Amino acid sequence: MDEYRLLIEADDTKGLVYNISKILYEHNLNIENNSEYVDNETNNFFMRTVISGEVNCEKLIDDIKSILPLNSEIKLTKKAKKDIVILATKEMHCLGDLLIKHTAGDLDANITAVVSNHNSLRDLVEKFDIPFEYVSHENLTREDHEDLIIEAIKKYDYELIVLAKYMRILTPKFVKTFNNQVLNIHHSFLPAFIGANPYKQAHKRGVKIIGATSHWVTDDLDEGPIIAQDITRVDHSYSWEDMRDAGRNVEKVVLSNALDLVLKDKVFVYGNKTVIL
Amino acid sequence: MDEYRLLIEADDTKGLVYNISKILYEHNLNIENNSEYVDNETNNFFMRTVISGEVNCEKLIDDIKSILPLNSEIKLTKKAKKDIVILATKEMHCLGDLLIKHTAGDLDANITAVVSNHNSLRDLVEKFDIPFEYVSHENLTREDHEDLIIEAIKKYDYELIVLAKYMRILTPKFVKTFNNQVLNIHHSFLPAFIGANPYKQAHKRGVKIIGATSHWVTDDLDEGPIIAQDITRVDHSYSWEDMRDAGRNVEKVVLSNALDLVLKDKVFVYGNKTVIL
Amino acid sequence: MDEYRLLIEADDTKGLVYNISKILYEHNLNIENNSEYVDNETNNFFMRTVISGEVNCEKLIDDIKSILPLNSEIKLTKKAKKDIVILATKEMHCLGDLLIKHTAGDLDANITAVVSNHNSLRDLVEKFDIPFEYVSHENLTREDHEDLIIEAIKKYDYELIVLAKYMRILTPKFVKTFNNQVLNIHHSFLPAFIGANPYKQAHKRGVKIIGATSHWVTDDLDEGPIIAQDITRVDHSYSWEDMRDAGRNVEKVVLSNALDLVLKDKVFVYGNKTVIL
Amino acid sequence: MDEYRLLIEADDTKGLVYNISKILYEHNLNIENNSEYVDNETNNFFMRTVISGEVNCEKLIDDIKSILPLNSEIKLTKKAKKDIVILATKEMHCLGDLLIKHTAGDLDANITAVVSNHNSLRDLVEKFDIPFEYVSHENLTREDHEDLIIEAIKKYDYELIVLAKYMRILTPKFVKTFNNQVLNIHHSFLPAFIGANPYKQAHKRGVKIIGATSHWVTDDLDEGPIIAQDITRVDHSYSWEDMRDAGRNVEKVVLSNALDLVLKDKVFVYGNKTVIL
Repeated sequence: MDEYRLLIEADDTKGLVYNISKILYEHNLNIENNSEYVDNETNNFFMRTVISGEVNCEKLIDDIKSILPLNSEIKLTKKAKKDIVILATKEMHCLGDLLIKHTAGDLDANITAVVSNHNSLRDLVEKFDIPFEYVSHENLTREDHEDLIIEAIKKYDYELIVLAKYMRILTPKFVKTFNNQVLNIHHSFLPAFIGANPYKQAHKRGVKIIGATSHWVTDDLDEGPIIAQDITRVDHSYSWEDMRDAGRNVEKVVLSNALDLVLKDKVFVYGNKTVIL
Repeated sequence: MDEYRLLIEADDTKGLVYNISKILYEHNLNIENNSEYVDNETNNFFMRTVISGEVNCEKLIDDIKSILPLNSEIKLTKKAKKDIVILATKEMHCLGDLLIKHTAGDLDANITAVVSNHNSLRDLVEKFDIPFEYVSHENLTREDHEDLIIEAIKKYDYELIVLAKYMRILTPKFVKTFNNQVLNIHHSFLPAFIGANPYKQAHKRGVKIIGATSHWVTDDLDEGPIIAQDITRVDHSYSWEDMRDAGRNVEKVVLSNALDLVLKDKVFVYGNKTVIL
Repeated sequence: MDEYRLLIEADDTKGLVYNISKILYEHNLNIENNSEYVDNETNNFFMRTVISGEVNCEKLIDDIKSILPLNSEIKLTKKAKKDIVILATKEMHCLGDLLIKHTAGDLDANITAVVSNHNSLRDLVEKFDIPFEYVSHENLTREDHEDLIIEAIKKYDYELIVLAKYMRILTPKFVKTFNNQVLNIHHSFLPAFIGANPYKQAHKRGVKIIGATSHWVTDDLDEGPIIAQDITRVDHSYSWEDMRDAGRNVEKVVLSNALDLVLKDKVFVYGNKTVIL
Repeated sequence: MDEYRLLIEADDTKGLVYNISKILYEHNLNIENNSEYVDNETNNFFMRTVISGEVNCEKLIDDIKSILPLNSEIKLTKKAKKDIVILATKEMHCLGDLLIKHTAGDLDANITAVVSNHNSLRDLVEKFDIPFEYVSHENLTREDHEDLIIEAIKKYDYELIVLAKYMRILTPKFVKTFNNQVLNIHHSFLPAFIGANPYKQAHKRGVKIIGATSHWVTDDLDEGPIIAQDITRVDHSYSWEDMRDAGRNVEKVVLSNALDLVLKDKVFVYGNKTVIL
C-alpha cells in the first residue's frame, strides 16, 4: 500500500486538528504517524501526517482546503525517491559520502548528475556511473558561468539541488530559478564565521569547538533557514588545516542528516526558520 | 486561564485522533500543544495534549473514555507545582543543584523534605529552610531501615520521590510503596556499569566517554525505564576520582532534565521503556 | 610534600626541554606531570610541569631564567586554594553552582565575597556565610558605579574575579585594574551572538544548537581569549525563554570547567588565544 | 627533512625526561612535538616525541635503551603511509568511508586489499582499483574459513588490519597471527551491549543515546583496549533499524578517527587500556 505525506501550514484556529482528522477519517485513511506544532507567538499551525490507504489525492486536498483558513499551504507527496542534482567543487568528502550512501541504498534519492566548476571530481563520480558535468568558471563572469551551471542542471531531473561543498557564491538569479530547492552545507557553526575561510577564522579566534550547518539557500549568503547543525571539539594544538580535517567529518554527517530530513518531507520553512516534524 | 495536560495511552485504532479531537472541540477547549506517537510494532498509541479553557474534568474524562478501547489509560493533570521528597546520602552536587533551582524558581516543584541515611547534608538543606530527616541505617537491617525511611517520607506531601544520589539499594517493598513515583540518577551510561562503583569500573575498562542515566526505579536494580542520559569525554589521564568529578556535572544535569520532563507530565512508561512527548 | 606548578612560555629553541629538565634534575625534584606544546606557526614554546620535592623557588626560577631566551615568561605557583571574588547580577544558576561546589569542597578556591549591582542574591549568598556587597548602579554613571564596584572588590582578598552572569559592560579601567584576572561566562557560542540578548538572537536566527563560552575579559567585549565552550541541542519548539533555561545548564558547567582549569594553573594566554596544558 | 616518531614506555624514574632529551639534544635532533604521561597509580611513563633532523636510527635507539630501565619499550617509526588490509562483510558505510578518504588523500595509509566473506562489496572495491578477495565461509568450519582469510590477507602488504564491520567472530589463532595489529569497530557504546545485535539490544533497553567503539582486537570478544568512542541521540520513535541507520554515521566516524590515531603512532597499549599522546 502506498504511503503519502500530508503537510499543512495554516493560521491556528480552534478545531483544526478535529476538522483535518475528520476528513482523513472520512477518506478511510490510516494515520501512520502524526506530528503537530503550534508557534504560539505567531499563531502558525504545522502538521505532518503520514497516511496510507487508497488516497484520492485531488479530492483529499480539496476537502482539506475547504476547512483551512485562506492562505494556508497544503502539500501531499507520495513516498518515493526524489531526484537530486549535486553541485561540488574540489573537495570529496561530502560528495563521496552521498555517493556511498546512494550505492548502499541508504539514500531516499536518485543522484541524477553531479555538476562542478572543476574537473577533478570527474573520476570519482564516473566510477559510480553518474553523469558528471564540468562547467569551468574560467574567463567567465559570475553571471555567465552561472547560466551555464543552470543549463547543465536543467539537463537532468531534479526536485532538489544539493551543494556538497560547492564553493561559488550564487546570484539571486540562481536562487530564484531553484526557489526553495537548494540545500547547502556551510563549514561553520552559523552564524559564527559567515563567509570565506571559516576554519581560518575559527583558528584565529581560538575557539574550542567547531561545527557545520546545513541550510536552505536564500539571497542572503549563509543566512538561509537552518535545518541541521553539529559540532566537534578542537584545542590549541589544531592548526587551521587540522580544524578543516576534523570539520569534514562533521560537514558530511550534517549534510547527510539534513538531506535525510528533506527527503522525508519533514522540513517546513517559515520566515527564516525551519520547523522539523 | 488554567492549563491542563491530557495523557492518553491506548491500542491504536482508526479514528482515534479524530474522535479525541472531536470531544475536545465539543468541550470548547483550546489545544495549546499536541503530540502523538504510535509504536507500530506494538500498536500502542500515545497522546499528550495541553488544553486550556473551562475544563470540566470529570465529564471530559468520561467522554474520552467512552470512545477509547478498553484497557486504555487516561490522565488529566492541572498544570501546577508537584510536591517532591528528595532522598540523598552524602554527595552534595545533585541535591545542591535542585535546591538552587528550587530557590531560583526554576523548578516546577515544591521540595517538601530531604531524607538521608547520613547527617552530613543537614546543614546545606536547612540553609534553605527545608525539613531534613536523618534516618541512620546503623545497626538496622535493610528492611527495618527502609521502614523508617518510608515513615519519614510519609510525614510529608509528595507526588514524586527523587533519589539524588541515594546510595542504598531499595527493596521491592519500597518500590511497591511508591509505585512508579521514584526517579533515580545512576552514575553510568546504563546499561554499562550496572551496580556498585561505576566510575571505578569505567576507569578499569579504559572507556573514553562516561555518562549518567536517570530512570524510574523498578525491582530490577538499574534496569528501570530510562528517561534521560548524557555523556562527557574522558581520557587516559583521568583517575577514577577524576572521572567521578567530571561525571558529577553530567549527573546533576541529567537528573534535573529528567525531573523537568516528569514534572511537565511528558513521560509515558510502557513495558520497560519511556515515551517522551 | 608540597606540589608546585611551573609554567614556562618562551621562543622555541633547540634543547629547551633538555635544559629545563636538567635544572629540575639538578634541583632533585620529582616531575609529577609534564606537558609541552609548540606552536610551530609562531614558534612559541609552552610547558607546564607539576613538581614535588623541596623546592627552592627563588633559585629554581633564577636557574631556569638563565637558560631561557629573553622575553620568556616563567611562573611558579604552589598548589593551594586561590581566593576569588564573584560578581553577579540577578541570575542564580552560575553563582549557586559555585556556592554548592565551594560548600562541597569541590572548588580549589575560597570565595571571599560576592559583589552585585542588585540586592536580590543577598539571601542566597548569606546562607553560605559569605560577605555580600550590594553596589547599586542607580543614578550613577557607568564610571562612578564601577569605581564603587572596584572599591568593594578590593576590600577582599582575590587572585581572580569571576563574572558569574554579571550583566554590566566593563570599562577599560576595570579591565586594566584587574589585568588578566577576570573570567567571564558569555551565554552564547562565541563568536556567534556577541552582545546583548544572545538567546533572543539565537531564537530569531533559528539555530538548532545553543552554547556558552567562558573567556578572559579584555577591552573588546566578548572578544577575549576563550577557555571553554559547550553546547546543547534545541529545536523549533523552543521559545527564547526555553533556550535561556536550557542554556543555563550549559553556562554553569562551562564556567565551572573553565574556572577549574584556571585554578589548576593550566591556562596560558598568548595573543587572543589560550593554550591549555 | 624526514620526520620520525619516538615512542617510549618505561617504569617512571627520576630524570627520565632529562636523560632522554639529553640524548636527542646530543643527536642534534629537533623536537617538533613532545607529549608525556605518567600513570601515577602504576608508575608507568609514556612519551611520544616527533623529531626531525638526520636520524641515525640504530644509534639513537641504542643510546636511549642504555638510559632506560630494563623491560622498557622503545619504538622509532618514520612518518610514512602504512599498508592496511581491510576486512568487511556486507555493510558499505565504514568501508566506503575509508575508500573515499583513501581516494581523497585524507588517509595516511595505503589500502592494499579488501578481504570479505561475502562477494557483495566487490563492485564497490573494484571501482577504486583495489584488490578484492572473496573468501566464502559456506560449508567451512570457523577454523578452516579463518585459515583461508589469513592466507588471503598474507598475499598483501600490511602493517595493520582494519575490521570495517567484519561480522565474524575471530579465533585466538587469528588474534595471535596478527598480534596487536587488528583494529575493530563495534556498533555499541562498549561495554554496553557486548555481542550480537547491539542495536536490537539497545532498542529493547530503551536507551536515549547509542554509540560506537573502536578497539584493538584481543581474545576476549569486545573487550580489547578502547581507542575511540562516540555517541548520537535517539528517542522512543526510533525502531532498531532507525538506530542502526543513525549508528552508521557514528561507526564510520569513530573507526576513521581511531585509525587516524593509530596511523599517527599516537596509541600506546598497556594492560587493557590505551594511552593516546
